[in-house]
This record gives sequence, structure tokens and C-alpha cells, in this order.
Amino acid sequence: MSEKLINEMTALEIQDYLVSGKSSISQFYAQLMEFVSEGDKKIHAFVNFDARCVEAQTQTLADDRDLGREPGPLYGVPIGLKDIIDTSDFPTEYGSVIHQGRYAISNATLVRRLKEAGAVILGKTATTEFAAMHPAATCNPHNLEHSPGGSSSGSAAAVAAGFVPIAIGSQTNGSLIRPASYCGVYGFKPSRGLLPRSGVFEQSPSLDQMGVFARSLEDIALATEIMNGDDGFDEATKAVAPMRLVKTCQSEPPVAPKFCFFKTPWWDKIDPEAQEAYEAFIAHLGQGVITVLEMPEVVNKAVQWHKSVHLAELAFSLQKEYRHHPEQLSQTLRDQIKAGLEIPLFDYLTAKDRIVHVGNAFDEYFDHFDGIVCPAALGTAPRGLGSTGDPIMQTVWSFAGLPTLNLPLLNCSNGLPLGVQMVGAYKNDGRLLRSARWLVHHFFSEETSQ
Amino acid sequence: MSEKLINEMTALEIQDYLVSGKSSISQFYAQLMEFVSEGDKKIHAFVNFDARCVEAQTQTLADDRDLGREPGPLYGVPIGLKDIIDTSDFPTEYGSVIHQGRYAISNATLVRRLKEAGAVILGKTATTEFAAMHPAATCNPHNLEHSPGGSSSGSAAAVAAGFVPIAIGSQTNGSLIRPASYCGVYGFKPSRGLLPRSGVFEQSPSLDQMGVFARSLEDIALATEIMNGDDGFDEATKAVAPMRLVKTCQSEPPVAPKFCFFKTPWWDKIDPEAQEAYEAFIAHLGQGVITVLEMPEVVNKAVQWHKSVHLAELAFSLQKEYRHHPEQLSQTLRDQIKAGLEIPLFDYLTAKDRIVHVGNAFDEYFDHFDGIVCPAALGTAPRGLGSTGDPIMQTVWSFAGLPTLNLPLLNCSNGLPLGVQMVGAYKNDGRLLRSARWLVHHFFSEETSQ
Repeated sequence: MSEKLINEMTALEIQDYLVSGKSSISQFYAQLMEFVSEGDKKIHAFVNFDARCVEAQTQTLADDRDLGREPGPLYGVPIGLKDIIDTSDFPTEYGSVIHQGRYAISNATLVRRLKEAGAVILGKTATTEFAAMHPAATCNPHNLEHSPGGSSSGSAAAVAAGFVPIAIGSQTNGSLIRPASYCGVYGFKPSRGLLPRSGVFEQSPSLDQMGVFARSLEDIALATEIMNGDDGFDEATKAVAPMRLVKTCQSEPPVAPKFCFFKTPWWDKIDPEAQEAYEAFIAHLGQGVITVLEMPEVVNKAVQWHKSVHLAELAFSLQKEYRHHPEQLSQTLRDQIKAGLEIPLFDYLTAKDRIVHVGNAFDEYFDHFDGIVCPAALGTAPRGLGSTGDPIMQTVWSFAGLPTLNLPLLNCSNGLPLGVQMVGAYKNDGRLLRSARWLVHHFFSEETSQ
Repeated sequence: MSEKLINEMTALEIQDYLVSGKSSISQFYAQLMEFVSEGDKKIHAFVNFDARCVEAQTQTLADDRDLGREPGPLYGVPIGLKDIIDTSDFPTEYGSVIHQGRYAISNATLVRRLKEAGAVILGKTATTEFAAMHPAATCNPHNLEHSPGGSSSGSAAAVAAGFVPIAIGSQTNGSLIRPASYCGVYGFKPSRGLLPRSGVFEQSPSLDQMGVFARSLEDIALATEIMNGDDGFDEATKAVAPMRLVKTCQSEPPVAPKFCFFKTPWWDKIDPEAQEAYEAFIAHLGQGVITVLEMPEVVNKAVQWHKSVHLAELAFSLQKEYRHHPEQLSQTLRDQIKAGLEIPLFDYLTAKDRIVHVGNAFDEYFDHFDGIVCPAALGTAPRGLGSTGDPIMQTVWSFAGLPTLNLPLLNCSNGLPLGVQMVGAYKNDGRLLRSARWLVHHFFSEETSQ
């Protein structure tokens, strides 16, 4: 493990590496900061990355340790935060010139929780404009001429580039799982209501959900477990008993999990090479593990309902910017806001009312299967930085609020990664992580693939 | 205590009376059923009241007891339920001919909890049409020519008439505290999110709140404590540690509570005699206890915001009835629905967004005062059954979701009761009940008033 380069280590490995004293935290960060500064000149994953802020954090951690404080489960682990998440030391600019230089009064709840666990916020990662469609300057680490996806562009790229083992992002439509697929990293959007959004830019309160990028499922489980829990300020977050996600993720399933694969109604839009990759994936798992099924009819309507809720709430959230600084918004965003302002109230209420029903439409699948598997994207990362790609493969799951993972298991001949999306039962995030880990371990680990 | 008539006993007294065996449950109910059947011929508090359903429940309780089951905290206590609350034995008809004879598949969560605690559902109490404005046939027990208020008309009247010590109602605008004031009983609408609404007719999901009518504050605390808690099905209900409302309510405040009195912007609309009664109330408490203050400006806007959210959601909730059975809806309700359908989405989202802000506007008062006191109604119960009166005194508190009580402390020369409304800090329901009990005990109990 200690022979791994620092840009290859998982969060669990870094914590152990630093706690056990194989490296001092200052040595580790001297090396890491150089690596990131140099590497990010081409990738632009970070929009705010400041050596002094990092030094202040690592110094505090070292001092606390000297004073006898028990190191936390993320002790010394560098983390990137999508630049819609408030931090009191770094600015939070929402990917918009309108908020350039904006400092939040306090840390978002999830930042406070990560720091309490010992994490070091390495910097703020690039987001598309207000986490909507207008791209950031970030490049895909696998090929700089391709998009990393969005809106959590910088977070996905930062993990893929080895800058951080964990980065935090968000998903309102396809903003987390899609970039994870394009960048070839694990991505996780937990069940709606698991992670509090207090101190995070509100794009669409009915749909916004926080999530994690990482190099391993265990790291995903760890970060989610630490950030999970009602803080009393996010109406959508429910208090639940502490979820032992790490333990559950690491445990063996009581019986071999079974999965169903949805080709989805958008299968024909998928790039032929990606279709082949998914077909090969299904064949590799075999019929005992995976059953190919049709998706329930409701998903086509769900896409429309998602749009009504999303655009209406986006227009409401950005009303001040739209009124006072329209010229500083992209044309794409202005058009979205305009469309949002025209949605009739009744359509909005109808759409919002369907959220629970769409979620329930998948209940019966989880009586028979441990996970629903489907494509994570229409293909590998699109060429050029003009578009962050199509979120359609995530829309239904974001709408329903079901937990969903990107598993970076496939590759196409252009050398770019392609993700497998796995969806779990509502509030059964641990079972999803455990089933996913079982699948990866049994069918894609180095021992089994030999 | 045992010398009290059964129609004068509190829930705590009835439970003790039956558990200690001073009466058998069948004797008690034989006597009660006769009393209610006779009394309700004039009052019409109940819309469904069935001796066989009651007998089945009391028989089960007696059998359970014989089998050694510990009697619950509401053992044998008769309870009335507003007819928008689902029960599997009685029909639930929403005060509308459209739903006549409708049987729910299962009990609402709060019914299940009350029954688990040993309560006997005596019957379903009259509600205005869909808990909106069109009156029920219920009369005010204090004077049959006057309205009991609404929409929880039957629940308020049933407690006032001595039919039940506890009845459950709901408040979206002023549907609980106002009838409590008109009927001269204690009423309590807890903090928004305390009582789950699963299995209750949804009129306005952002505003609907459940509550309790009773003859004593301890009974209010007991019923609320039993019904409190997230059931996983009501998005607005938050899991909280069990609230020890009964103990808190019964405890002595650490220091003498202080209150502020808001005359409210609607003081001039209050009936002169009621104004006098409130002035006398202020004088009775004295300056050390109560400070008369102006209400913050935001309340005038809050009334408009309440209207936007309320009518929009009402129109959405009743879409099927409006489309398929318009002729079976009252003109009043049709007009409300029509108005709701015309509200622009942006106004709705703006109004909904203000809910939290309006709640916060009162925070500073609770730094200085244990309760905000204000009139519970514009006067005593209006004459005639054509209108259930004006809910304006509750609108702001319903909108903000703050806990609010009716204290039946005053009377006017027409012999009708007049309530004092007391509002507490959000989620600090115990403190409100304790402060209210202190005030009643120190200034209005028989010993002190002599």
C-alpha cells in the first residue's frame, strides 16, 4: 500500500498512511500541492486552490494531534468541493461572474462534518454556471479535448486526475453520475434526503441532491456516512439512525445479489460502440446474475415531470440574477429561466406530486433484484468543451430520488471510460453499495478477470 | 374525582377511573353512549357514531386486559376524530356528498397510535366541506343558534358538549384554534411537522397541520405526545426524540414566564365587547407578566402569502372533484378552487419560500418571552350556522407553522366563551404548554380568582 503513489491512494489508505506516521502531514501535502498545481494547469479542475488555506488546515490537524486528539476517519484526507458548496475560507462563486469573490459566512453542514472527521478541503472545484448547463473550463483528464461532463465537472475531473481521493458534487438532473461515467470514477448520489444541503446553492429544492466522487466504493461509503444526517436546516433531510454504510458496503451479501438491466427507452440514442460495451457487460455477468427487462412506462412521463419541476424552480432560484444581471448569464441559462417562468402552476404541482409515485413504481423491482442496472451515459465523454453531454440516463432517478451509483467498469476503443449505472431501493443505500461491491469484486477485480 | 360526571372528566381521569376498576369499561360506555346519543340530537357534532364499532373496541380492550396486557395511557378514553382522518371501521367522508360512504383501507397513522395507547374512537366528527369554508350542520353547545366555528366544527363541539375529553382536528388556516375559542375548550395546533398527516385528507400539504381539542392542557399534552413522531410517510414530519410533553407541561417553569400581547393589525375588526375582555385580560395579568407590543410588519404580507399557497394547493387537491362532480361542490368552494387555478406559479413559489422567513421573524420574541399572546378570534361565535367565522387571527401562525394554543379563559355577556391564543417557539411545544399551564394556574384557577 505504501508503495502506491499519493495520487493513487484511496481515502482510507491516506488516512492510515498519515495516522500511522508513514509520512508527516506536511510532507504529504508538500508533495500533493506540487502535483496538483502542476497537473491542474491543463485540467482546470479547481477554480479556487490556495496553499495557505490548505496549510492552515493541515497545521490545525497536526496541532490537534500533538494535543492528543484522536485522528478522525478522514484524518488528512484531501477533498475537493464543487463550487456551489459554501466554505468560509475559500470563496464560493457558483460558476458565475455574478458571484465572483463571494465569501460565505459559514461552512455548509457537509463541509463542517467532513472537517470534523479530519478532512482537508484542498479547494473548490469547477461547476458549470449555477450547476446548470453552461460548461466550465475543465477538461477530461483521460483526454483533454473531451468534456468531463457536468455540472460537477471539476469534482469528477479532480478525482480522475488523482488530485483528491474524494470530491463532493451534486445532481439535479444528471450532474454527478454522468461526469463520473465520462471521467471513469465511482460516483454516488444517495437517496434523496440523506445528505443535508444547507449552505449549498439551491437550484431546484425538490430535485437537488448531494453526492460523492471517489476511487473506491469504500471511500464513497465513508464520505456519505460522515456527511449523512439531518442538521435541522434542510426540510428535505430526514433524521435517520446512523447508517453503517462502510460496514455494510464491506460486508458479504447474505445471498448472491441479482440485478436487472434496463436498456431504457433511450437505447437507440446510445453510441453503437457503447451499446456493444453494455451488451458485452450483460453477457459477462450471465443470466444468473442479470436479467434484461423493459423499464416501466412511467419513465417517459417522468422526464417531462422532471423538466417542469426543474425549470420552474431554477427560474425561481435565479430570479435576482435574472432581473439584475441578465447580461451576465449565459444565453442557455436565460432560455432555461424563460421556459421556467412560463410553466403553469398546475403543471408544476402535478409534476411535483408525481415524485413519490415514480419512486414507488420501482418498488416491485427491488423485491426481486438488489439493483437496477442501466447505462450511465449515451456514450463516452463528448469531444470539445462546448457541451457537457446529455443527462437523460439520470433524469428518472434524480426525479424519483433513488440512490444511484456510477461504476467505472467499461472502456471504449477511443480510450475513454464508460460507466455502468446501478440504482438501489429508496433509503437502502447500504444494500446498493454492498451489491455493487460484490458485482465489482466478482466480475471485475484483477483476480477474476484473469 | 370519581364524583365528577363522566362528561366532565378529563382523559387522565377517565383512564385512571377505568384502570383502577371504579367502573367497568362496558358500564362506562353504556352510560356514555346514551349521553352522547341523546345530546347529539341537537348539536350534531358526530357524523358517524356507531354503537357496534364502539362495542367492538371496548370489548377488545377488556379482552386484552383480561389477557394481562398493560393498559395504555389512553386506556378506555373516548376520542372523536374529524371526518377527514381515515379510519378502517367508520367511513371517512370529508364532509362532502361526493365521498359519502367512503371507507378507507387503513387507519391514519395518528388513529393507529391513539388506539395502540388504548383510546376508543367514539365516532367521526363533522367537518366543513373538505375542511374548507362551507359549514357543517354542527351547533355550538353553548348556544345552539351560534356556529361552533370550523372547519373542525364537530371536534370542538364534541369536547365542549362533554361527549369526549379529547377530539382530533386540523388547521390549514384557522380551523382549530377558532372553533376552540368559540366552543370554550382548549385547542392545540403543534409545530408544523410534529404530527404525521398520513391517511388524512390533503387540502394544502404546505399548510395542513393536525391538532387536538381537550378539556385540560395535560390531556392536550398527552394526546400530542402519543400521536407525535415521524411515520416515514409524511414528508413534512421530522423524526425527533420523544417529546416528554406531559412531564414538561406539568412541571414548574424555572423562572416565572413572561409573555407579550399582540393586539394584531386586526384589532379594529374585533367586536368591542371582545376588545374589552382582552383589555381586562391584559390588566389582570399586569405589566410584570405581559407586555403589549406591535406585531412585526411581515404579518400583513404573510396573510397574502398564505392565501396564494392555500388556494393553489386546495385547487390541486380537489382537481378530480372539481372536474367530475362540480355540481356537488358548494359555490364557495368552487370559487376558491377557481381562484386557486389562476395563481401564477411564481407567486406560489414566492409565497411558499416565505414560510420559513415568517417563522424566523418571531425568533427574537422568544428570546425575551415564553409565549406570544393574542386574540383567538374577532369575537364570540357568530350567530347562525351560515358562516364559521373569520380565521384571520390564526393565518400567520398556520403559515409560519408555530405551535399555538387556545386557552378558554374569557366570557362575554352573551354567555359565549372567548379564547386567548398563545403562540410558542417552533418545535418548543413543551415550553409553550408549560408556560400556558403556569398562566392558567396562577391567574385563572379557582384558588387564585377568589
